[in-house]
Amino acid sequence: MNEEVAGDLRVLRLSHRPGRDDRMTTHVALTARAFGADGVILPEGAGQAARTAEDITDRFGGPFEVEQVADPQNVVATHDGPVVHLTMYGEPLEEVVTSVRSAFDGAVGLIVVGGGKVPGAVYERADWNVAVGQQPHSEIAALAVCLDRLTAGGWADRQWTDADRRIIPQASGKRVIGEGESAGYPED
Amino acid sequence: MNEEVAGDLRVLRLSHRPGRDDRMTTHVALTARAFGADGVILPEGAGQAARTAEDITDRFGGPFEVEQVADPQNVVATHDGPVVHLTMYGEPLEEVVTSVRSAFDGAVGLIVVGGGKVPGAVYERADWNVAVGQQPHSEIAALAVCLDRLTAGGWADRQWTDADRRIIPQASGKRVIGEGESAGYPED
Repeated sequence: MNEEVAGDLRVLRLSHRPGRDDRMTTHVALTARAFGADGVILPEGAGQAARTAEDITDRFGGPFEVEQVADPQNVVATHDGPVVHLTMYGEPLEEVVTSVRSAFDGAVGLIVVGGGKVPGAVYERADWNVAVGQQPHSEIAALAVCLDRLTAGGWADRQWTDADRRIIPQASGKRVIGEGESAGYPED
Repeated sequence: MNEEVAGDLRVLRLSHRPGRDDRMTTHVALTARAFGADGVILPEGAGQAARTAEDITDRFGGPFEVEQVADPQNVVATHDGPVVHLTMYGEPLEEVVTSVRSAFDGAVGLIVVGGGKVPGAVYERADWNVAVGQQPHSEIAALAVCLDRLTAGGWADRQWTDADRRIIPQASGKRVIGEGESAGYPED
């Protein structure tokens, strides 16, 4: 449960091409975790992304749940709670964010991140089709800014439990409590 | 020139492995464009990402400059203006954003997006090593939120010139003025 939306916030990655989409899906999962979601639901083929997200959660803390499902579209169809679908064709985030936040409060809210071609049924089931800018960019950027707005920036104050490692902010260089890390952002 | 930082804001992608990093670098370039940067500087090997960013600018509007350089680290070393380096080891964005915004005002500001191993010289040259959360996630997410804060959300109001296409926000479905588009976010 994150700070600002007193509900359970899940991110669903709708499609995944094994190999080709591994890094993108990994970044979707880690962005979900870092910006205040309580868990991510990934397609069955996204085992590498799931393992990375679990590994980061083991090392840097949780709670953050990683699930894999055989039929992500069915998760959307049967979801018992409000559904947001991120698409550049949707309504501007700033116009709907207050309504979305109210609907997610006390509920299990689902944020659907497409990628490639998204079936019409997802647009129809979604309570909100939401655009983070009416420009082509990145589903990772869209997810980050959407979660930022939904949590009203509260992701930055999240306290992590069971973390083996903690990064200590530095004006220059790197400082990690726990084992040493080498990269600025994780490579795949 | 974007709305909130009355300067020239450039994003530099420091490293790129052709093939392997094509999509990530493309998303970095499109995120730079969508969230208020005036241009992106890419390594020589990132031709595919450069072409996609130019193509999106041709269709959806500009101005947005796409450059390729032989030696990105030299761009950092010789940059005549303030430099921000995005790294999860840096100082929290919210603590430095006001100073960064002042420094970027009227200047050519450079935002450096690393990825893999970043040489110590970049940490040293950077006026600010900035963390968008002290958690491993995604350089694309970090760039989006950094630009969002630097432009104080002004990216959302940007007016695009010379656009052949324009997306009209819809509660459900897709509407594009200009030629038809098929995907919610561009696939590579």
